[in-house]
Amino acid sequence: MTNSQPMNLQQLAAANAAANFNRRFGFEVVSAADGNAELRMPWSDDGTQYAGHLHAGMIAALLDTACGFAAATLVGAVTASHFSMNCLRPAVGRGFVATGVTVRAGRKQIFSRAELFAEDDSGNRSLVATGETLLIAVG
Amino acid sequence: MTNSQPMNLQQLAAANAAANFNRRFGFEVVSAADGNAELRMPWSDDGTQYAGHLHAGMIAALLDTACGFAAATLVGAVTASHFSMNCLRPAVGRGFVATGVTVRAGRKQIFSRAELFAEDDSGNRSLVATGETLLIAVG
Amino acid sequence: MTNSQPMNLQQLAAANAAANFNRRFGFEVVSAADGNAELRMPWSDDGTQYAGHLHAGMIAALLDTACGFAAATLVGAVTASHFSMNCLRPAVGRGFVATGVTVRAGRKQIFSRAELFAEDDSGNRSLVATGETLLIAVG
Amino acid sequence: MTNSQPMNLQQLAAANAAANFNRRFGFEVVSAADGNAELRMPWSDDGTQYAGHLHAGMIAALLDTACGFAAATLVGAVTASHFSMNCLRPAVGRGFVATGVTVRAGRKQIFSRAELFAEDDSGNRSLVATGETLLIAVG
Repeated sequence: MTNSQPMNLQQLAAANAAANFNRRFGFEVVSAADGNAELRMPWSDDGTQYAGHLHAGMIAALLDTACGFAAATLVGAVTASHFSMNCLRPAVGRGFVATGVTVRAGRKQIFSRAELFAEDDSGNRSLVATGETLLIAVG
Repeated sequence: MTNSQPMNLQQLAAANAAANFNRRFGFEVVSAADGNAELRMPWSDDGTQYAGHLHAGMIAALLDTACGFAAATLVGAVTASHFSMNCLRPAVGRGFVATGVTVRAGRKQIFSRAELFAEDDSGNRSLVATGETLLIAVG
Repeated sequence: MTNSQPMNLQQLAAANAAANFNRRFGFEVVSAADGNAELRMPWSDDGTQYAGHLHAGMIAALLDTACGFAAATLVGAVTASHFSMNCLRPAVGRGFVATGVTVRAGRKQIFSRAELFAEDDSGNRSLVATGETLLIAVG
Repeated sequence: MTNSQPMNLQQLAAANAAANFNRRFGFEVVSAADGNAELRMPWSDDGTQYAGHLHAGMIAALLDTACGFAAATLVGAVTASHFSMNCLRPAVGRGFVATGVTVRAGRKQIFSRAELFAEDDSGNRSLVATGETLLIAVG
């Protein structure tokens, strides 16, 4: 993500693959265009906190990445300066889907937000966390 | 962390060891008492984002855990409902130290904040991120 | 707002009128039901910061009140423990509309978010800020 | 605050006086230098929420202004893009003191945080809220 031009799905998939953390936990960029992005991650036993739920750090990683990729589709390479999240329910499931959307892409700062859904064994999704990121363009 | 009594260093080290994520990345509880807690983590090549810096999810994990352990020394088992962080500088170093402090332990909610320091090869520390967590007791 | 039962528009209008700050600046509860609430406020020369835009405190007041009233329609009286907002554009206009929605009403905590729109002289709305509040029931 | 040079106490007192909201509620800049700032405000019956405590919007206004003035002592005119606060205790007292400190003044963004204290009739202070602001220089 050193590009100052809007990035497409192929470029973001490459950026995702270049991140050891994302690759280690199987992040996959499902879609990315027009200020939006969607990620998937399968359940990983390595990503849990003491009670066996998905770790807050993993929740943050998914939400923040979805925010960043959503912004990158509009302004290219970005870096997060502020991130926040609400943990609504215990994050457990066979997999997770994070959807990011750009709220405003200003000249100096980009505001994005994201939702994290857990998928149960039947494929039903429930909202487990929300997040938002304030980013700056770095390209 | 299913205890509703204040937890000491030994109990928090056990909770830390029970979290796959923390163990996977080598989190170590250095101290924990009187509303404060300190964690350490060595550099891990698996914890990086696309540019080779520590991933936002790792930064969040360290800050959030330091906040939670700081709170647990006063009120026992807790869970995070809101977390936020500021990323001040690129997080690179041979290791990281996260220090958490409890700002207020109320009857229903506990407010903690934390700082994350990167250590260079000479052992010099620089502040790379700050965070805060709003927790509820679950014991 | 000392009620632990869901509150309707009439009750929230009364709570709004009981708040000196809200009354002083002409807050009006337009609608409130089913986890949602909408407020209006006319422009007030007393509510400005140094540059003549709406003050951050006024923006916060509108967003936080919209969040709280949205939550109160589901759980009754609430109080805010955490509030955050993004200031997207200078807040100027002949009036402002704040819309709040409840994201999750849990047993211990309620998560709401809100959007603030400025209205120009033609009645066109533009999004100037977003916010979110974490509340606890106090009834 | 249209200055891109660091601002001193006199300049910030002038900026404070130029803000209708601050003047209306009697904000006073007590000190401002070296990345720090302190504000005072007397109790105002006009600044209350439904229960007679200081309104969340007033709390936000004091914290955000303290953050902004603290930053302005280092970088000149600033504007807030993100603000958050924790409401720790009911805000009541004969007056309030807000202290702001700059955590990091970067090239593109400035991170500040603040604490709000209520003063009782004997002059004893208690911490009632904390906040933080992410600002950009606008001079």
